[in-house]
Amino acid sequence: MADQRFILVLHGPNLNLLGQREPTIYGHTTLAEINAQLEARAHAHGVELIIIQSNHEGELIDAIQQYGFTASGIIINPGALTHYSIALRDALAAVPAPAIEVHLSNIHAREPFRHHSVTAPVTRGQIVGLGPAGYLLALQYFLEYAKDEWKG
Amino acid sequence: MADQRFILVLHGPNLNLLGQREPTIYGHTTLAEINAQLEARAHAHGVELIIIQSNHEGELIDAIQQYGFTASGIIINPGALTHYSIALRDALAAVPAPAIEVHLSNIHAREPFRHHSVTAPVTRGQIVGLGPAGYLLALQYFLEYAKDEWKG
Amino acid sequence: MADQRFILVLHGPNLNLLGQREPTIYGHTTLAEINAQLEARAHAHGVELIIIQSNHEGELIDAIQQYGFTASGIIINPGALTHYSIALRDALAAVPAPAIEVHLSNIHAREPFRHHSVTAPVTRGQIVGLGPAGYLLALQYFLEYAKDEWKG
Amino acid sequence: MADQRFILVLHGPNLNLLGQREPTIYGHTTLAEINAQLEARAHAHGVELIIIQSNHEGELIDAIQQYGFTASGIIINPGALTHYSIALRDALAAVPAPAIEVHLSNIHAREPFRHHSVTAPVTRGQIVGLGPAGYLLALQYFLEYAKDEWKG
Amino acid sequence: MADQRFILVLHGPNLNLLGQREPTIYGHTTLAEINAQLEARAHAHGVELIIIQSNHEGELIDAIQQYGFTASGIIINPGALTHYSIALRDALAAVPAPAIEVHLSNIHAREPFRHHSVTAPVTRGQIVGLGPAGYLLALQYFLEYAKDEWKG
Amino acid sequence: MADQRFILVLHGPNLNLLGQREPTIYGHTTLAEINAQLEARAHAHGVELIIIQSNHEGELIDAIQQYGFTASGIIINPGALTHYSIALRDALAAVPAPAIEVHLSNIHAREPFRHHSVTAPVTRGQIVGLGPAGYLLALQYFLEYAKDEWKG
Amino acid sequence: MADQRFILVLHGPNLNLLGQREPTIYGHTTLAEINAQLEARAHAHGVELIIIQSNHEGELIDAIQQYGFTASGIIINPGALTHYSIALRDALAAVPAPAIEVHLSNIHAREPFRHHSVTAPVTRGQIVGLGPAGYLLALQYFLEYAKDEWKG
Amino acid sequence: MADQRFILVLHGPNLNLLGQREPTIYGHTTLAEINAQLEARAHAHGVELIIIQSNHEGELIDAIQQYGFTASGIIINPGALTHYSIALRDALAAVPAPAIEVHLSNIHAREPFRHHSVTAPVTRGQIVGLGPAGYLLALQYFLEYAKDEWKG
Amino acid sequence: MADQRFILVLHGPNLNLLGQREPTIYGHTTLAEINAQLEARAHAHGVELIIIQSNHEGELIDAIQQYGFTASGIIINPGALTHYSIALRDALAAVPAPAIEVHLSNIHAREPFRHHSVTAPVTRGQIVGLGPAGYLLALQYFLEYAKDEWKG
Amino acid sequence: MADQRFILVLHGPNLNLLGQREPTIYGHTTLAEINAQLEARAHAHGVELIIIQSNHEGELIDAIQQYGFTASGIIINPGALTHYSIALRDALAAVPAPAIEVHLSNIHAREPFRHHSVTAPVTRGQIVGLGPAGYLLALQYFLEYAKDEWKG
Amino acid sequence: MADQRFILVLHGPNLNLLGQREPTIYGHTTLAEINAQLEARAHAHGVELIIIQSNHEGELIDAIQQYGFTASGIIINPGALTHYSIALRDALAAVPAPAIEVHLSNIHAREPFRHHSVTAPVTRGQIVGLGPAGYLLALQYFLEYAKDEWKG
Amino acid sequence: MADQRFILVLHGPNLNLLGQREPTIYGHTTLAEINAQLEARAHAHGVELIIIQSNHEGELIDAIQQYGFTASGIIINPGALTHYSIALRDALAAVPAPAIEVHLSNIHAREPFRHHSVTAPVTRGQIVGLGPAGYLLALQYFLEYAKDEWKG
Repeated sequence: MADQRFILVLHGPNLNLLGQREPTIYGHTTLAEINAQLEARAHAHGVELIIIQSNHEGELIDAIQQYGFTASGIIINPGALTHYSIALRDALAAVPAPAIEVHLSNIHAREPFRHHSVTAPVTRGQIVGLGPAGYLLALQYFLEYAKDEWKG
Repeated sequence: MADQRFILVLHGPNLNLLGQREPTIYGHTTLAEINAQLEARAHAHGVELIIIQSNHEGELIDAIQQYGFTASGIIINPGALTHYSIALRDALAAVPAPAIEVHLSNIHAREPFRHHSVTAPVTRGQIVGLGPAGYLLALQYFLEYAKDEWKG
Repeated sequence: MADQRFILVLHGPNLNLLGQREPTIYGHTTLAEINAQLEARAHAHGVELIIIQSNHEGELIDAIQQYGFTASGIIINPGALTHYSIALRDALAAVPAPAIEVHLSNIHAREPFRHHSVTAPVTRGQIVGLGPAGYLLALQYFLEYAKDEWKG
Repeated sequence: MADQRFILVLHGPNLNLLGQREPTIYGHTTLAEINAQLEARAHAHGVELIIIQSNHEGELIDAIQQYGFTASGIIINPGALTHYSIALRDALAAVPAPAIEVHLSNIHAREPFRHHSVTAPVTRGQIVGLGPAGYLLALQYFLEYAKDEWKG
Repeated sequence: MADQRFILVLHGPNLNLLGQREPTIYGHTTLAEINAQLEARAHAHGVELIIIQSNHEGELIDAIQQYGFTASGIIINPGALTHYSIALRDALAAVPAPAIEVHLSNIHAREPFRHHSVTAPVTRGQIVGLGPAGYLLALQYFLEYAKDEWKG
Repeated sequence: MADQRFILVLHGPNLNLLGQREPTIYGHTTLAEINAQLEARAHAHGVELIIIQSNHEGELIDAIQQYGFTASGIIINPGALTHYSIALRDALAAVPAPAIEVHLSNIHAREPFRHHSVTAPVTRGQIVGLGPAGYLLALQYFLEYAKDEWKG
Repeated sequence: MADQRFILVLHGPNLNLLGQREPTIYGHTTLAEINAQLEARAHAHGVELIIIQSNHEGELIDAIQQYGFTASGIIINPGALTHYSIALRDALAAVPAPAIEVHLSNIHAREPFRHHSVTAPVTRGQIVGLGPAGYLLALQYFLEYAKDEWKG
Repeated sequence: MADQRFILVLHGPNLNLLGQREPTIYGHTTLAEINAQLEARAHAHGVELIIIQSNHEGELIDAIQQYGFTASGIIINPGALTHYSIALRDALAAVPAPAIEVHLSNIHAREPFRHHSVTAPVTRGQIVGLGPAGYLLALQYFLEYAKDEWKG
Repeated sequence: MADQRFILVLHGPNLNLLGQREPTIYGHTTLAEINAQLEARAHAHGVELIIIQSNHEGELIDAIQQYGFTASGIIINPGALTHYSIALRDALAAVPAPAIEVHLSNIHAREPFRHHSVTAPVTRGQIVGLGPAGYLLALQYFLEYAKDEWKG
Repeated sequence: MADQRFILVLHGPNLNLLGQREPTIYGHTTLAEINAQLEARAHAHGVELIIIQSNHEGELIDAIQQYGFTASGIIINPGALTHYSIALRDALAAVPAPAIEVHLSNIHAREPFRHHSVTAPVTRGQIVGLGPAGYLLALQYFLEYAKDEWKG
Repeated sequence: MADQRFILVLHGPNLNLLGQREPTIYGHTTLAEINAQLEARAHAHGVELIIIQSNHEGELIDAIQQYGFTASGIIINPGALTHYSIALRDALAAVPAPAIEVHLSNIHAREPFRHHSVTAPVTRGQIVGLGPAGYLLALQYFLEYAKDEWKG
Repeated sequence: MADQRFILVLHGPNLNLLGQREPTIYGHTTLAEINAQLEARAHAHGVELIIIQSNHEGELIDAIQQYGFTASGIIINPGALTHYSIALRDALAAVPAPAIEVHLSNIHAREPFRHHSVTAPVTRGQIVGLGPAGYLLALQYFLEYAKDEWKG
């Protein structure tokens, strides 16, 4: 991996249920479909993706620590951890890779406890409410607009 | 399991210490004793139980995802996760099985931070403060009162 | 009554409208039907019930004072008084009979002002959101699990 | 009553249980004993007392309306209504008789919800935490210190 | 009453003191005068009024339950209960008659605790601060603007 | 205008879209229809109306300053400015004409941020939730009940 | 002092200005007059008073430490320190003498920051709003009602 | 315009100063440069842009009302109005065009009052913290991902 | 203007009514009189003033943008915008001229919502409660004490 | 002093360290230099200054009581006591001399706990953030603008 | 282990990155270096250490349950879990070993959400802000000052 | 003192009562015993201690100002002043000597108002809940770990 630019894509708790879970909120696209679209686009730019889904906060932190020092960027949908996992926030703040936080649904139009993100302040930015397109736009940000920052 | 009605019983962090831990609050009954009573009663009704205890939020979420689409009901005591694990809440909301939240102690008579449950709004109901009997009453709800909803 | 074990069942304001009032929230069962089910089960155990419904906070307090020193238990659905009647709370705290607070609907899934109970801290426990079955489970708690505490 | 100075003494919900109810908080003196002491002292000064206890907010309001236009003073222990009955407050504010709010226990050393009084701002003052003596001191205020204000 | 359109007019605690009580806030008109004006206007439209004043929360709830299923409308000034009686709110929500909440004084220009109404969300609307005219305008709403909704 | 009684009618931001905008909340009547009804009724009483709609806070303030010293009354629906425009409040407080605040929808049954009005404390009163009839009732207040205050 | 029962009377900041300072709030009686009345009454009962006024929090604490281990009681008006001096509170809690907190004005009818007392929870009780009579009633409590607790 | 798909681009207060204003927060790109980039990309897709910058809340509302019924999408950076302009929110909610809210800086990493957006709940989504690229990604969303929703 | 030192004086909403509006709060001096005094003093020091009053937030922002890059100082009384106009704050923060915020009345002795200024943190300082003299002292600050910072 | 106009200048805790203490916040001017400038200007107007610095709240209160009945004005920088000393506030409110509160730094641009002043509501006004010039402008207010109020 | 006194040392999420992660906050010492120093000192006293670092809340709870019944003490730096892991708190409360909470940085001088510790109330004490020395001082507490409590 | 390294030890209000005051909270060790232990240890390292106890906030500030510019460190237990004395905080921030805040009891396990320290953010760190050992560990920090920073 040392010779190859790559981007870390992290999906938090319950995102493995996409397509199945509350489709009126989260839509019918599955996580596999989203990942396939991301990989197609990344590969077209000669960039690798490391994609991890986990329901365990600790595993997400482990991944950020393992890949966040060499990745060109992190695309992360922390799921419900967005709202309380200060440990995840600290992990994101501890690594040099810039992160974009993605949410499929418009969290500001849902329950009040979903309006606040503890991770957002240590990311570069957020893309919220645009469904699966949000992931693709985040990827495009790293591929097109943040290219100059890359180490490769 | 496909041919058999079953109910998922989940015990959250530190409940493995029951009997040993702060007995003035939690009583002297052990978790094994509670589980044995639950199984005796369930088996008498021809219903299986899948019982899991974990100190790991992620493992509880994994279990809900694995069994929550086919279980006839979930009896869950999320322990301290009750008060902050939005990820657990989202898992419960994502599966069709109705859940009853059980607490051994009367959480409303304890520290203020124990008065609020983030999981309660997505459960069918709660039984609080009735000690080990709370588990048995929850089981009885599924066996006796919610029978008509069953798929089996 | 002195020779006979009995349990006090209290229904607070507007519960006389059950079946008629907002059935999407409270269901179609009437209060008379619930009371009949409770009495059938209690009598089968040789226990009397004293059942009172009132829209008047003061009458509920009077009833607790009159019967709460000799009853084996109190099953109370304080209705909307749950959320502000500190006087009702004080009455429950003043008598030796253990009380179980019952709510038909899942109050934690409704308006925020219904999430807090001023009476819960002085009861033994709560059964919430299980519909009419909640009353029957509360009764069963007194008949089956709390029997040893009885004076009779 | 028109020819006679009198003072209205009001005891709110659950105060009829005094001596019996939570004696570690409220002491062992009964309400009858307190009333007898008050009457002895008032009669020694040639003043009548009208003493009413009720668990009904409405009856306390009725009493304030009936007697508060002619009484020389009101001694009121609103019990738990202290903390939420704006209607009681409005009744006290609506009549010319000055009122003293009395609490047997030190409400500021108890649960936070007992620290705030909605009635206190419309009374002349409060005597808190001095047990049954609080009633006698309130009476003495009207007999000795506020005498000049009397109409009689 | 079955053959006759009628409107329920409810006056809450302390409104029987109108004219006498804090006239700088509530004016000099008595409740009898307001009621007479209301009846004159209603009778001119061939509509009956049922008018009830009570200092007892429970009596107001009883009245709403008794008349709220057949009345064409409810005009209610809940007095101080406005600010805390969730039981009154539940009663108003439980009956089909549309209600208008009336306040004589501009509650938003008074103490902060009077700014919030727990009953307003379940009424059709409020008329606030317009003195006795507020009652007449509420009546006119039912007579003139909401006529088509009537069952009669 | 000096010789003629007149009332200022102000419609705030987005009210020009009435009939078109979120009709489930605001109804199907257009602003032109409301204005026509108001003018018909006013002219029948020999009173002129000056009617202004603006999406600009500053224009509403300018209008209050221009007409508020000579108008017999102001009927204002500040729209969303209700909830934050202290400048509008100050303008209303600066002129002698009494104002009635009107809202078509029941703002207390909508999002929490719509429950609070910064302008209400400096108006004479509010009519809320009664749809277009609210404007007509406000007009009637000035025509019928507040007539004696007029300068003309 | 060892042979003589005594009571400590403490006046906090700005109370030396009594009679001169904001008389509409605090009345026209001077501190010297209050002290003289207290001493007359105490001497009639053979009890000494130690009276100290200070604008310095530290001096009040010093006094409580010096006299609070042997005094039969403390009468303290902490003035504005009531609302923030936790150090004063700790001093009162550190000594065995029971204390009564006295306020001349009805602090609950004044600015919100005066409604809360940090010292009240560690006193036996409070007498509020009764003017100079409050001091005399506090003294009488120690002379008459709390006599049995005395060491002398 | 009727024959042509177009997207409305709105820049709120102070965005005309871009490049000049606090460049450590907002960067060195001018608004003209951002607009030129947006137009180049839109024209390449045969889509027109209507671009408006204003420091006046009312002008932004006027523009939403004028174009929001026919535009295929709205890209809006409300600037500081994000945090308090409920009138802007209401305008966005009143028109059928979907809106994306864009912020150049990561508002969640700045002062607390910038963390909350009153407009976000009525937009489809937000792109935050990605600098000028945020505008381009929002445009791309409408050009590429939301194409099927278009009316044209 | 390039050759001449000048100071920008901005008066916010409703300040054009000075002398006329709530004189017990704002005094009897008119805005024209204040401006004349400011100009006399400035001219004596060879400094020009640009004075603007507007009820429109957008116009105040426009003026700050137009003059704030070359002015030697800004004296601004934002009126009610003080308390909510973050857009005004951002404009002040975007220009290099130091600003002094002036309030005629002591806003800290008025309604709570007037205690907080959203603009104060980005100004150099505030002069509050000193009436028209506040403006003159602010001017003197720029003429006498901040002279060395001037560009001229 | 009786024959001579004078102004009281009070410097609160830690102001004796000026010049030495956190110079990036408080500047390099010493308190002695500020006092010298104040005295030069006062003497030029034939006015005396009484200048006191103390780290003791009680000494500042003593000084206000001693001089505040005869001083023509008080210039006070309460330092950190600004934010909690209600006793200092009460002292300022108890004396007739008008006070101006001065802060060297812009407290509204610092930590949140420095934004609120408990003393400000009882002063005539505040001058904040203008460094040592703030004292001189406060003095000038008393010398020039408030002259007519003087007793001398 | 049964024969040997030992102390449990727990390092929470992200502490494995010490030396590498935000060194301006956390310093340059690595976790290995800290552990080595701790072991050197413990061994000099004949005490064993069990040292565990984990990014997984569940693993930390498991460790506390496994060792907390026999350890002589627990030194724990819960990292970000400090601020929300009630489950960790419950684990610490469930075992008899006294715990000291250590933080390298002064959490009270950082973001507000780091000021509150949910674990602190169930520990014996905290050592905060003293860098790696904090661990050594915690160890010394157990070695030197708490020796008498040991079971060994 | 100039030739000699020294450390300032400050004990705040009521700490002179140690051993005597609420021993269940504060233990039985007296302040003299603690001071003796501190001096023994310091002298063994050739370091002087200046030890001051005061119940007066001003005296503690004076001491910090007098010794804080030359001391090698400050060990301070501010007692109850911890929770409100911003003036003490400012004094600690004004001097170069690093400070450690010590509390005998675990303030996080006591009343909520003791959980917050206004002084902690300007100290280097805190040692809480370890009884008298806390002082000794703080001293050791200065003797052993912070040695390199010393000026001597």
